[in-house]
Amino acid sequence: MNNSEFQTRLAARWRDANSMLCVGIDPEVNRIPVHLRSLNDAFFQFGKAIVDATAAHVCAFKPQAAHFAAEGCEDQLAQLIAYIRVNHPKIVVILDAKRGDVGSTAKFYAREAFERYQADAVTVNPYLGYDSLEPYFDYSDKGIVVLCRTSNPGSDWLQKSELAKSPLYLEVAKQIAEWDQGGQCMLVTGATYPEELAQVRALVGDMPLLVPGVGAQGGSIEEVVAAGLDSRGCGLAISSSRGIIYAGEGEDFAERAGAQAALVKQEINQAMGKG
Amino acid sequence: MNNSEFQTRLAARWRDANSMLCVGIDPEVNRIPVHLRSLNDAFFQFGKAIVDATAAHVCAFKPQAAHFAAEGCEDQLAQLIAYIRVNHPKIVVILDAKRGDVGSTAKFYAREAFERYQADAVTVNPYLGYDSLEPYFDYSDKGIVVLCRTSNPGSDWLQKSELAKSPLYLEVAKQIAEWDQGGQCMLVTGATYPEELAQVRALVGDMPLLVPGVGAQGGSIEEVVAAGLDSRGCGLAISSSRGIIYAGEGEDFAERAGAQAALVKQEINQAMGKG
Repeated sequence: MNNSEFQTRLAARWRDANSMLCVGIDPEVNRIPVHLRSLNDAFFQFGKAIVDATAAHVCAFKPQAAHFAAEGCEDQLAQLIAYIRVNHPKIVVILDAKRGDVGSTAKFYAREAFERYQADAVTVNPYLGYDSLEPYFDYSDKGIVVLCRTSNPGSDWLQKSELAKSPLYLEVAKQIAEWDQGGQCMLVTGATYPEELAQVRALVGDMPLLVPGVGAQGGSIEEVVAAGLDSRGCGLAISSSRGIIYAGEGEDFAERAGAQAALVKQEINQAMGKG
Repeated sequence: MNNSEFQTRLAARWRDANSMLCVGIDPEVNRIPVHLRSLNDAFFQFGKAIVDATAAHVCAFKPQAAHFAAEGCEDQLAQLIAYIRVNHPKIVVILDAKRGDVGSTAKFYAREAFERYQADAVTVNPYLGYDSLEPYFDYSDKGIVVLCRTSNPGSDWLQKSELAKSPLYLEVAKQIAEWDQGGQCMLVTGATYPEELAQVRALVGDMPLLVPGVGAQGGSIEEVVAAGLDSRGCGLAISSSRGIIYAGEGEDFAERAGAQAALVKQEINQAMGKG
Protein backbone atom coordinates (compact mmCIF):
# COMPACT_ATOMS: atom_id res chain seq x y z
CA MET A 1 0.00 0.00 0.00
CA ASN A 2 1.25 3.46 -0.85
CA ASN A 3 1.11 6.23 1.67
CA SER A 4 -0.78 9.40 0.94
CA GLU A 5 0.84 12.74 1.63
CA PHE A 6 -1.43 12.88 4.67
CA GLN A 7 -0.04 9.68 6.16
CA THR A 8 3.53 10.60 5.29
CA ARG A 9 3.17 13.92 7.09
CA LEU A 10 1.52 12.30 10.10
CA ALA A 11 4.31 9.73 10.38
CA ALA A 12 6.96 12.44 10.08
CA ARG A 13 5.32 14.39 12.83
CA TRP A 14 5.10 11.36 15.14
CA ARG A 15 8.86 11.12 14.80
CA ASP A 16 9.81 14.79 14.91
CA ALA A 17 7.57 15.76 17.82
CA ASN A 18 8.02 12.39 19.52
CA SER A 19 4.29 12.53 20.16
CA MET A 20 1.12 10.65 19.29
CA LEU A 21 -1.07 13.23 21.05
CA CYS A 22 -3.86 14.86 19.05
CA VAL A 23 -5.52 17.89 20.65
CA GLY A 24 -9.22 18.35 19.91
CA ILE A 25 -10.39 21.95 19.68
CA ASP A 26 -14.00 22.11 20.89
CA PRO A 27 -14.75 25.71 21.89
CA GLU A 28 -17.87 26.39 23.97
CA VAL A 29 -19.23 29.83 24.74
CA ASN A 30 -19.70 29.00 28.42
CA ARG A 31 -16.38 27.28 28.95
CA ILE A 32 -13.82 29.52 27.27
CA PRO A 33 -12.18 32.00 29.65
CA VAL A 34 -14.37 34.94 30.64
CA HIS A 35 -11.92 37.53 29.36
CA LEU A 36 -12.30 36.18 25.80
CA ARG A 37 -16.07 35.88 25.65
CA SER A 38 -16.84 39.42 24.55
CA LEU A 39 -14.46 39.31 21.58
CA ASN A 40 -15.97 39.12 18.09
CA ASP A 41 -13.58 36.32 17.23
CA ALA A 42 -13.55 34.63 20.63
CA PHE A 43 -13.38 31.07 19.24
CA PHE A 44 -10.49 31.94 16.95
CA GLN A 45 -8.57 33.69 19.71
CA PHE A 46 -9.19 30.81 22.08
CA GLY A 47 -8.17 28.23 19.48
CA LYS A 48 -5.09 30.18 18.42
CA ALA A 49 -3.83 30.45 22.01
CA ILE A 50 -4.44 26.72 22.60
CA VAL A 51 -2.69 25.86 19.33
CA ASP A 52 0.40 27.93 20.09
CA ALA A 53 0.65 26.64 23.64
CA THR A 54 0.26 22.95 22.78
CA ALA A 55 1.88 22.74 19.32
CA ALA A 56 5.22 21.43 20.55
CA HIS A 57 3.51 18.43 22.09
CA VAL A 58 1.14 17.24 19.36
CA CYS A 59 1.07 15.31 16.10
CA ALA A 60 -2.36 16.62 15.10
CA PHE A 61 -5.05 19.16 15.86
CA LYS A 62 -8.67 18.13 15.55
CA PRO A 63 -11.10 21.06 15.45
CA GLN A 64 -14.70 19.95 16.00
CA ALA A 65 -17.05 21.43 13.38
CA ALA A 66 -20.22 21.21 15.49
CA HIS A 67 -18.91 23.66 18.05
CA PHE A 68 -18.32 26.31 15.43
CA ALA A 69 -21.54 25.50 13.53
CA ALA A 70 -23.77 25.84 16.61
CA GLU A 71 -22.61 29.42 17.00
CA GLY A 72 -22.59 30.23 13.30
CA CYS A 73 -18.89 30.99 13.20
CA GLU A 74 -17.50 28.76 10.49
CA ASP A 75 -15.39 31.72 9.40
CA GLN A 76 -13.42 31.41 12.64
CA LEU A 77 -12.94 27.71 12.02
CA ALA A 78 -11.49 28.52 8.59
CA GLN A 79 -9.33 31.22 10.13
CA LEU A 80 -8.03 28.85 12.81
CA ILE A 81 -7.09 26.13 10.31
CA ALA A 82 -5.36 28.71 8.12
CA TYR A 83 -3.46 29.92 11.20
CA ILE A 84 -2.26 26.38 11.96
CA ARG A 85 -1.19 25.81 8.36
CA VAL A 86 0.90 28.98 8.30
CA ASN A 87 2.37 28.90 11.79
CA HIS A 88 2.61 25.17 12.48
CA PRO A 89 2.83 23.68 9.01
CA LYS A 90 4.13 20.30 10.14
CA ILE A 91 1.09 19.51 12.29
CA VAL A 92 -1.76 17.76 10.51
CA VAL A 93 -5.28 19.13 10.84
CA ILE A 94 -8.13 16.64 11.09
CA LEU A 95 -11.50 18.33 10.62
CA ASP A 96 -13.87 16.47 12.92
CA ALA A 97 -17.15 16.79 11.04
CA LYS A 98 -18.32 13.16 10.72
CA ARG A 99 -19.89 13.75 7.34
CA GLY A 100 -21.83 11.04 5.54
CA ASP A 101 -24.05 11.40 2.50
CA VAL A 102 -24.77 9.93 -0.95
CA GLY A 103 -22.03 10.46 -3.52
CA SER A 104 -23.52 13.47 -5.28
CA THR A 105 -23.73 15.29 -1.93
CA ALA A 106 -20.55 13.88 -0.41
CA LYS A 107 -18.71 15.68 -3.21
CA PHE A 108 -19.75 18.95 -1.59
CA TYR A 109 -18.73 17.85 1.90
CA ALA A 110 -15.33 16.83 0.51
CA ARG A 111 -15.04 20.25 -1.06
CA GLU A 112 -16.00 21.82 2.28
CA ALA A 113 -13.29 19.93 4.16
CA PHE A 114 -10.45 20.03 1.66
CA GLU A 115 -11.00 23.20 -0.38
CA ARG A 116 -12.86 25.56 1.88
CA TYR A 117 -11.13 24.60 5.14
CA GLN A 118 -7.96 23.13 3.61
CA ALA A 119 -7.93 20.41 6.26
CA ASP A 120 -5.49 17.53 5.86
CA ALA A 121 -8.15 14.98 6.75
CA VAL A 122 -11.82 14.77 7.69
CA THR A 123 -13.82 12.33 9.82
CA VAL A 124 -16.59 10.48 7.92
CA ASN A 125 -19.36 8.00 8.67
CA PRO A 126 -19.42 4.63 6.84
CA TYR A 127 -23.19 4.00 7.05
CA LEU A 128 -23.84 4.91 3.40
CA GLY A 129 -21.07 2.76 1.92
CA TYR A 130 -18.47 3.19 -0.76
CA ASP A 131 -20.05 5.76 -3.06
CA SER A 132 -20.41 8.04 -0.03
CA LEU A 133 -16.62 7.88 0.51
CA GLU A 134 -15.47 8.01 -3.10
CA PRO A 135 -15.44 11.82 -3.40
CA TYR A 136 -12.95 12.00 -0.52
CA PHE A 137 -10.68 9.41 -2.12
CA ASP A 138 -10.55 11.67 -5.17
CA TYR A 139 -8.35 14.04 -3.15
CA SER A 140 -5.47 11.59 -3.17
CA ASP A 141 -3.16 13.61 -0.92
CA LYS A 142 -5.79 13.90 1.81
CA GLY A 143 -6.80 11.72 4.75
CA ILE A 144 -10.15 10.02 5.34
CA VAL A 145 -10.86 9.15 8.95
CA VAL A 146 -13.68 6.62 9.04
CA LEU A 147 -15.78 5.94 12.14
CA CYS A 148 -15.27 2.31 13.09
CA ARG A 149 -15.69 1.64 16.82
CA THR A 150 -16.66 4.92 18.43
CA SER A 151 -15.94 5.71 22.05
CA ASN A 152 -19.48 6.45 23.25
CA PRO A 153 -21.67 4.04 25.27
CA GLY A 154 -24.49 3.94 22.70
CA SER A 155 -22.20 2.66 19.99
CA ASP A 156 -22.61 -1.00 20.98
CA TRP A 157 -26.08 -1.31 19.56
CA LEU A 158 -25.16 -1.03 15.88
CA GLN A 159 -21.39 -1.32 15.83
CA LYS A 160 -21.34 -4.56 17.81
CA SER A 161 -24.20 -6.12 15.86
CA GLU A 162 -23.20 -9.68 15.08
CA LEU A 163 -22.83 -10.30 11.37
CA ALA A 164 -22.32 -13.78 9.96
CA LYS A 165 -18.68 -14.01 10.98
CA SER A 166 -17.86 -11.04 13.17
CA PRO A 167 -19.23 -7.84 14.68
CA LEU A 168 -20.05 -5.01 12.35
CA TYR A 169 -17.19 -2.68 13.34
CA LEU A 170 -14.69 -5.32 12.24
CA GLU A 171 -16.46 -5.61 8.90
CA VAL A 172 -16.07 -1.83 8.61
CA ALA A 173 -12.36 -2.07 9.46
CA LYS A 174 -11.76 -4.87 6.98
CA GLN A 175 -13.66 -3.22 4.18
CA ILE A 176 -12.04 0.20 4.63
CA ALA A 177 -8.60 -1.43 4.55
CA GLU A 178 -9.58 -3.05 1.26
CA TRP A 179 -10.87 0.19 -0.25
CA ASP A 180 -7.84 2.17 0.86
CA GLN A 181 -5.53 1.70 -2.10
CA GLY A 182 -3.69 4.99 -1.62
CA GLY A 183 -2.94 4.92 2.09
CA GLN A 184 -5.43 7.67 2.82
CA CYS A 185 -7.52 6.10 5.55
CA MET A 186 -7.51 6.16 9.33
CA LEU A 187 -10.10 4.53 11.56
CA VAL A 188 -11.75 5.98 14.65
CA THR A 189 -11.43 3.39 17.41
CA GLY A 190 -12.38 4.58 20.88
CA ALA A 191 -10.01 4.35 23.82
CA THR A 192 -12.93 3.11 25.88
CA TYR A 193 -12.79 -0.30 24.17
CA PRO A 194 -9.09 -1.31 24.13
CA GLU A 195 -9.68 -4.98 23.36
CA GLU A 196 -11.65 -4.07 20.30
CA LEU A 197 -8.97 -1.59 19.30
CA ALA A 198 -6.52 -4.50 19.35
CA GLN A 199 -8.82 -6.51 17.07
CA VAL A 200 -9.00 -3.59 14.64
CA ARG A 201 -5.22 -3.21 14.70
CA ALA A 202 -4.83 -6.89 13.90
CA LEU A 203 -7.00 -6.45 10.80
CA VAL A 204 -5.62 -3.25 9.28
CA GLY A 205 -1.83 -3.54 9.42
CA ASP A 206 -0.17 -0.16 9.84
CA MET A 207 -3.22 1.96 9.04
CA PRO A 208 -3.20 4.83 11.56
CA LEU A 209 -5.95 4.92 14.17
CA LEU A 210 -7.58 8.02 15.65
CA VAL A 211 -8.33 7.24 19.28
CA PRO A 212 -10.70 9.51 21.18
CA GLY A 213 -12.02 8.78 24.63
CA VAL A 214 -9.05 9.19 26.95
CA GLY A 215 -9.55 11.78 29.67
CA ALA A 216 -13.16 12.89 30.15
CA GLN A 217 -14.58 9.65 28.68
CA GLY A 218 -12.43 7.43 30.86
CA GLY A 219 -10.21 5.51 28.41
CA SER A 220 -6.77 4.44 29.64
CA ILE A 221 -3.67 5.57 27.76
CA GLU A 222 -1.74 2.52 28.92
CA GLU A 223 -4.35 0.15 27.56
CA VAL A 224 -4.59 2.07 24.28
CA VAL A 225 -0.85 1.95 23.72
CA ALA A 226 -0.69 -1.74 24.64
CA ALA A 227 -3.50 -2.53 22.21
CA GLY A 228 -2.91 -0.18 19.34
CA LEU A 229 0.73 0.33 18.32
CA ASP A 230 1.56 -0.63 14.75
CA SER A 231 4.56 -2.58 13.48
CA ARG A 232 6.66 0.58 13.51
CA GLY A 233 5.85 1.27 17.16
CA CYS A 234 3.62 4.24 16.39
CA GLY A 235 0.38 4.44 14.37
CA LEU A 236 -1.93 6.25 16.78
CA ALA A 237 -3.33 9.75 17.16
CA ILE A 238 -4.61 9.69 20.72
CA SER A 239 -7.08 12.49 20.99
CA SER A 240 -7.93 14.55 24.04
CA SER A 241 -10.06 17.67 23.91
CA ARG A 242 -11.76 18.95 27.05
CA GLY A 243 -9.15 17.54 29.42
CA ILE A 244 -6.53 19.72 27.77
CA ILE A 245 -8.23 22.81 26.38
CA TYR A 246 -10.17 23.48 29.59
CA ALA A 247 -7.32 22.63 31.97
CA GLY A 248 -7.42 26.25 33.10
CA GLU A 249 -10.21 28.80 33.23
CA GLY A 250 -8.35 32.06 33.82
CA GLU A 251 -6.01 34.28 31.89
CA ASP A 252 -3.37 31.56 32.05
CA PHE A 253 -5.62 29.03 30.30
CA ALA A 254 -3.22 28.52 27.38
CA GLU A 255 -0.25 27.93 29.64
CA ARG A 256 -2.27 25.39 31.59
CA ALA A 257 -3.35 23.68 28.38
CA GLY A 258 0.25 23.52 27.25
CA ALA A 259 1.35 21.99 30.54
CA GLN A 260 -1.47 19.46 30.39
CA ALA A 261 -0.61 18.54 26.78
CA ALA A 262 3.02 18.02 27.80
CA LEU A 263 1.82 15.75 30.60
CA VAL A 264 -0.42 13.64 28.39
CA LYS A 265 2.32 13.34 25.78
CA GLN A 266 4.67 12.15 28.51
CA GLU A 267 2.09 9.68 29.75
CA ILE A 268 1.78 8.25 26.23
CA ASN A 269 5.55 8.00 25.87
CA GLN A 270 5.90 6.36 29.27
CA ALA A 271 3.29 3.80 28.29
CA MET A 272 5.43 3.14 25.21
CA GLY A 273 8.46 2.56 27.39
CA LYS A 274 10.07 5.76 26.13
CA GLY A 275 9.66 7.18 29.64
CA MET B 1 -47.62 7.21 20.59
CA ASN B 2 -48.04 10.97 20.83
CA ASN B 3 -47.30 13.17 17.88
CA SER B 4 -44.73 15.91 18.11
CA GLU B 5 -45.56 19.37 16.84
CA PHE B 6 -43.38 18.49 13.86
CA GLN B 7 -45.49 15.49 12.89
CA THR B 8 -48.73 17.33 13.53
CA ARG B 9 -47.67 20.12 11.22
CA LEU B 10 -46.48 17.70 8.55
CA ALA B 11 -49.79 15.82 8.64
CA ALA B 12 -51.77 19.07 8.44
CA ARG B 13 -49.76 20.10 5.43
CA TRP B 14 -50.27 16.75 3.65
CA ARG B 15 -53.98 17.43 3.96
CA ASP B 16 -54.09 21.15 3.23
CA ALA B 17 -51.76 21.09 0.23
CA ASN B 18 -52.98 17.67 -0.88
CA SER B 19 -49.33 16.86 -1.46
CA MET B 20 -46.65 14.50 -0.23
CA LEU B 21 -43.97 16.17 -2.35
CA CYS B 22 -40.85 17.46 -0.60
CA VAL B 23 -38.58 19.71 -2.64
CA GLY B 24 -34.87 19.46 -1.93
CA ILE B 25 -32.90 22.68 -2.27
CA ASP B 26 -29.38 21.82 -3.43
CA PRO B 27 -27.85 24.94 -5.00
CA GLU B 28 -24.70 24.55 -7.09
CA VAL B 29 -22.62 27.41 -8.41
CA ASN B 30 -22.42 25.91 -11.88
CA ARG B 31 -26.04 24.91 -12.19
CA ILE B 32 -28.00 27.90 -10.97
CA PRO B 33 -29.09 30.27 -13.76
CA VAL B 34 -26.31 32.42 -15.17
CA HIS B 35 -28.09 35.69 -14.38
CA LEU B 36 -27.97 34.88 -10.64
CA ARG B 37 -24.36 33.76 -10.38
CA SER B 38 -22.81 37.18 -9.87
CA LEU B 39 -25.08 38.11 -6.96
CA ASN B 40 -23.58 38.17 -3.47
CA ASP B 41 -26.52 36.16 -2.19
CA ALA B 42 -27.00 33.98 -5.26
CA PHE B 43 -27.92 30.83 -3.30
CA PHE B 44 -30.50 32.70 -1.25
CA GLN B 45 -32.04 34.36 -4.31
CA PHE B 46 -32.12 31.06 -6.14
CA GLY B 47 -33.65 29.25 -3.18
CA LYS B 48 -36.20 31.99 -2.52
CA ALA B 49 -37.42 31.92 -6.11
CA ILE B 50 -37.67 28.11 -6.07
CA VAL B 51 -39.51 28.23 -2.74
CA ASP B 52 -42.07 30.79 -3.88
CA ALA B 53 -42.67 29.00 -7.18
CA THR B 54 -43.10 25.52 -5.70
CA ALA B 55 -44.67 26.27 -2.28
CA ALA B 56 -48.24 25.54 -3.35
CA HIS B 57 -47.26 22.02 -4.34
CA VAL B 58 -45.18 20.82 -1.39
CA CYS B 59 -45.49 19.49 2.14
CA ALA B 60 -41.84 20.13 2.98
CA PHE B 61 -38.66 21.84 1.86
CA LYS B 62 -35.36 20.08 2.39
CA PRO B 63 -32.34 22.37 2.06
CA GLN B 64 -29.09 20.40 1.77
CA ALA B 65 -26.42 21.73 4.15
CA ALA B 66 -23.42 20.46 2.18
CA HIS B 67 -24.18 22.67 -0.79
CA PHE B 68 -24.12 25.79 1.34
CA ALA B 69 -21.14 24.59 3.41
CA ALA B 70 -18.95 23.91 0.37
CA GLU B 71 -19.27 27.55 -0.64
CA GLY B 72 -19.06 28.94 2.89
CA CYS B 73 -22.47 30.53 2.76
CA GLU B 74 -24.27 29.15 5.78
CA ASP B 75 -25.64 32.64 6.33
CA GLN B 76 -27.69 32.25 3.14
CA LEU B 77 -28.99 28.90 4.37
CA ALA B 78 -30.15 30.58 7.59
CA GLN B 79 -31.68 33.41 5.57
CA LEU B 80 -33.52 30.98 3.30
CA ILE B 81 -35.00 28.99 6.19
CA ALA B 82 -36.07 32.23 7.89
CA TYR B 83 -37.69 33.29 4.63
CA ILE B 84 -39.67 30.04 4.44
CA ARG B 85 -40.78 30.33 8.06
CA VAL B 86 -42.11 33.85 7.56
CA ASN B 87 -43.60 33.52 4.10
CA HIS B 88 -44.69 29.89 4.01
CA PRO B 89 -45.18 29.09 7.71
CA LYS B 90 -47.23 25.94 7.12
CA ILE B 91 -44.49 24.16 5.19
CA VAL B 92 -42.07 22.14 7.30
CA VAL B 93 -38.35 22.59 6.82
CA ILE B 94 -36.13 19.52 7.03
CA LEU B 95 -32.46 20.46 7.28
CA ASP B 96 -30.61 17.76 5.37
CA ALA B 97 -27.32 17.63 7.23
CA LYS B 98 -26.98 13.93 8.17
CA ARG B 99 -25.25 14.70 11.44
CA GLY B 100 -23.96 11.97 13.71
CA ASP B 101 -21.65 12.32 16.70
CA VAL B 102 -21.21 11.32 20.34
CA GLY B 103 -23.72 12.87 22.75
CA SER B 104 -21.57 15.73 23.99
CA THR B 105 -21.00 16.87 20.40
CA ALA B 106 -24.46 15.98 19.07
CA LYS B 107 -25.78 18.59 21.50
CA PHE B 108 -24.06 21.23 19.38
CA TYR B 109 -25.37 19.81 16.11
CA ALA B 110 -28.89 19.84 17.57
CA ARG B 111 -28.36 23.45 18.54
CA GLU B 112 -27.14 24.19 15.01
CA ALA B 113 -30.25 22.67 13.41
CA PHE B 114 -32.94 23.83 15.82
CA GLU B 115 -31.65 27.09 17.31
CA ARG B 116 -29.35 28.55 14.73
CA TYR B 117 -31.30 27.48 11.64
CA GLN B 118 -34.69 27.03 13.31
CA ALA B 119 -35.40 23.99 11.15
CA ASP B 120 -38.41 21.83 11.99
CA ALA B 121 -36.41 18.63 11.58
CA VAL B 122 -32.90 17.45 10.76
CA THR B 123 -31.54 14.30 9.12
CA VAL B 124 -29.23 12.23 11.34
CA ASN B 125 -27.10 9.08 11.07
CA PRO B 126 -27.75 6.14 13.43
CA TYR B 127 -24.23 4.65 13.41
CA LEU B 128 -23.34 5.98 16.87
CA GLY B 129 -26.49 4.81 18.63
CA TYR B 130 -28.88 6.25 21.16
CA ASP B 131 -26.72 8.74 23.02
CA SER B 132 -25.91 10.34 19.67
CA LEU B 133 -29.65 10.95 19.08
CA GLU B 134 -30.66 11.94 22.60
CA PRO B 135 -29.83 15.67 22.26
CA TYR B 136 -32.26 15.90 19.34
CA PHE B 137 -35.03 14.20 21.31
CA ASP B 138 -34.59 16.90 23.95
CA TYR B 139 -36.24 19.35 21.51
CA SER B 140 -39.60 17.64 21.89
CA ASP B 141 -41.43 19.73 19.28
CA LYS B 142 -38.86 18.95 16.60
CA GLY B 143 -38.42 16.15 14.08
CA ILE B 144 -35.56 13.66 13.85
CA VAL B 145 -35.12 12.07 10.44
CA VAL B 146 -32.95 8.98 10.83
CA LEU B 147 -31.11 7.34 7.92
CA CYS B 148 -32.44 3.81 7.58
CA ARG B 149 -32.27 2.46 4.02
CA THR B 150 -30.61 5.12 1.91
CA SER B 151 -31.19 5.45 -1.81
CA ASN B 152 -27.61 5.16 -3.05
CA PRO B 153 -26.06 2.03 -4.59
CA GLY B 154 -23.28 1.71 -1.99
CA SER B 155 -25.75 1.46 0.85
CA ASP B 156 -26.20 -2.32 0.51
CA TRP B 157 -22.86 -3.16 2.02
CA LEU B 158 -23.63 -2.09 5.60
CA GLN B 159 -27.37 -1.51 5.59
CA LYS B 160 -28.17 -4.94 4.19
CA SER B 161 -25.69 -6.75 6.43
CA GLU B 162 -27.47 -9.79 7.77
CA LEU B 163 -27.90 -9.70 11.51
CA ALA B 164 -29.17 -12.69 13.47
CA LYS B 165 -32.77 -12.24 12.44
CA SER B 166 -32.93 -9.59 9.76
CA PRO B 167 -30.89 -7.08 7.78
CA LEU B 168 -29.43 -4.16 9.62
CA TYR B 169 -31.70 -1.46 8.20
CA LEU B 170 -34.71 -3.24 9.66
CA GLU B 171 -32.99 -3.37 13.05
CA VAL B 172 -32.52 0.40 12.70
CA ALA B 173 -36.19 0.86 11.84
CA LYS B 174 -37.37 -1.28 14.74
CA GLN B 175 -35.09 0.35 17.26
CA ILE B 176 -35.90 3.92 16.21
CA ALA B 177 -39.62 3.14 16.49
CA GLU B 178 -38.98 1.92 20.02
CA TRP B 179 -36.96 4.97 21.00
CA ASP B 180 -39.49 7.39 19.51
CA GLN B 181 -41.78 7.96 22.46
CA GLY B 182 -42.85 11.44 21.42
CA GLY B 183 -43.67 10.92 17.77
CA GLN B 184 -40.63 12.89 16.63
CA CYS B 185 -39.01 10.45 14.24
CA MET B 186 -39.07 9.89 10.51
CA LEU B 187 -36.96 7.38 8.62
CA VAL B 188 -35.09 7.89 5.36
CA THR B 189 -36.03 5.01 3.06
CA GLY B 190 -34.92 5.35 -0.53
CA ALA B 191 -37.31 5.19 -3.45
CA THR B 192 -34.78 2.99 -5.22
CA TYR B 193 -35.66 0.03 -2.95
CA PRO B 194 -39.47 -0.09 -2.83
CA GLU B 195 -39.74 -3.63 -1.45
CA GLU B 196 -37.55 -2.69 1.46
CA LEU B 197 -39.57 0.45 1.97
CA ALA B 198 -42.62 -1.79 2.36
CA GLN B 199 -40.79 -3.86 4.99
CA VAL B 200 -39.90 -0.70 6.91
CA ARG B 201 -43.50 0.52 6.72
CA ALA B 202 -44.71 -2.79 8.11
CA LEU B 203 -42.43 -2.35 11.13
CA VAL B 204 -43.03 1.28 12.07
CA GLY B 205 -46.78 1.85 11.92
CA ASP B 206 -47.63 5.39 10.90
CA MET B 207 -44.19 6.87 11.40
CA PRO B 208 -43.61 9.21 8.43
CA LEU B 209 -40.95 8.25 5.89
CA LEU B 210 -38.70 10.61 3.96
CA VAL B 211 -38.22 9.09 0.54
CA PRO B 212 -35.42 10.42 -1.67
CA GLY B 213 -34.38 8.85 -4.93
CA VAL B 214 -37.21 9.53 -7.35
CA GLY B 215 -36.20 11.46 -10.44
CA ALA B 216 -32.43 11.64 -11.03
CA GLN B 217 -31.74 8.46 -9.02
CA GLY B 218 -34.39 6.45 -10.85
CA GLY B 219 -36.95 5.51 -8.15
CA SER B 220 -40.56 5.05 -9.26
CA ILE B 221 -43.29 7.13 -7.65
CA GLU B 222 -45.88 4.43 -8.31
CA GLU B 223 -43.85 1.81 -6.52
CA VAL B 224 -43.11 4.14 -3.62
CA VAL B 225 -46.76 4.96 -3.12
CA ALA B 226 -47.78 1.31 -3.40
CA ALA B 227 -45.17 0.32 -0.83
CA GLY B 228 -45.16 3.17 1.60
CA LEU B 229 -48.58 4.66 2.45
CA ASP B 230 -49.52 4.52 6.11
CA SER B 231 -52.86 3.52 7.63
CA ARG B 232 -54.21 7.02 7.05
CA GLY B 233 -53.34 6.91 3.35
CA CYS B 234 -50.48 9.37 3.65
CA GLY B 235 -47.23 9.19 5.66
CA LEU B 236 -44.61 10.00 3.04
CA ALA B 237 -42.48 12.97 2.11
CA ILE B 238 -41.32 12.04 -1.37
CA SER B 239 -38.27 14.14 -2.07
CA SER B 240 -37.05 15.41 -5.40
CA SER B 241 -34.26 17.94 -5.73
CA ARG B 242 -32.36 18.27 -9.00
CA GLY B 243 -35.28 17.10 -11.16
CA ILE B 244 -37.30 20.06 -9.95
CA ILE B 245 -34.93 22.88 -9.07
CA TYR B 246 -32.95 22.55 -12.29
CA ALA B 247 -35.96 21.98 -14.55
CA GLY B 248 -35.09 25.25 -16.26
CA GLU B 249 -31.80 27.04 -16.80
CA GLY B 250 -32.89 30.48 -17.93
CA GLU B 251 -34.63 33.49 -16.45
CA ASP B 252 -37.83 31.45 -16.19
CA PHE B 253 -36.16 28.79 -14.00
CA ALA B 254 -38.56 29.34 -11.09
CA GLU B 255 -41.63 29.06 -13.27
CA ARG B 256 -40.25 25.84 -14.75
CA ALA B 257 -39.53 24.48 -11.27
CA GLY B 258 -43.07 25.34 -10.20
CA ALA B 259 -44.54 23.56 -13.21
CA GLN B 260 -42.35 20.51 -12.58
CA ALA B 261 -43.33 20.43 -8.89
CA ALA B 262 -47.00 20.58 -9.88
CA LEU B 263 -46.40 17.67 -12.24
CA VAL B 264 -44.65 15.49 -9.66
CA LYS B 265 -47.33 16.26 -7.09
CA GLN B 266 -49.94 15.19 -9.62
CA GLU B 267 -48.01 12.03 -10.39
CA ILE B 268 -47.96 11.18 -6.68
CA ASN B 269 -51.68 11.84 -6.35
CA GLN B 270 -52.46 9.78 -9.42
CA ALA B 271 -50.49 6.91 -7.99
CA MET B 272 -52.66 7.26 -4.89
CA GLY B 273 -55.78 7.04 -7.00
CA LYS B 274 -56.61 10.67 -6.31
CA GLY B 275 -56.00 11.40 -10.00
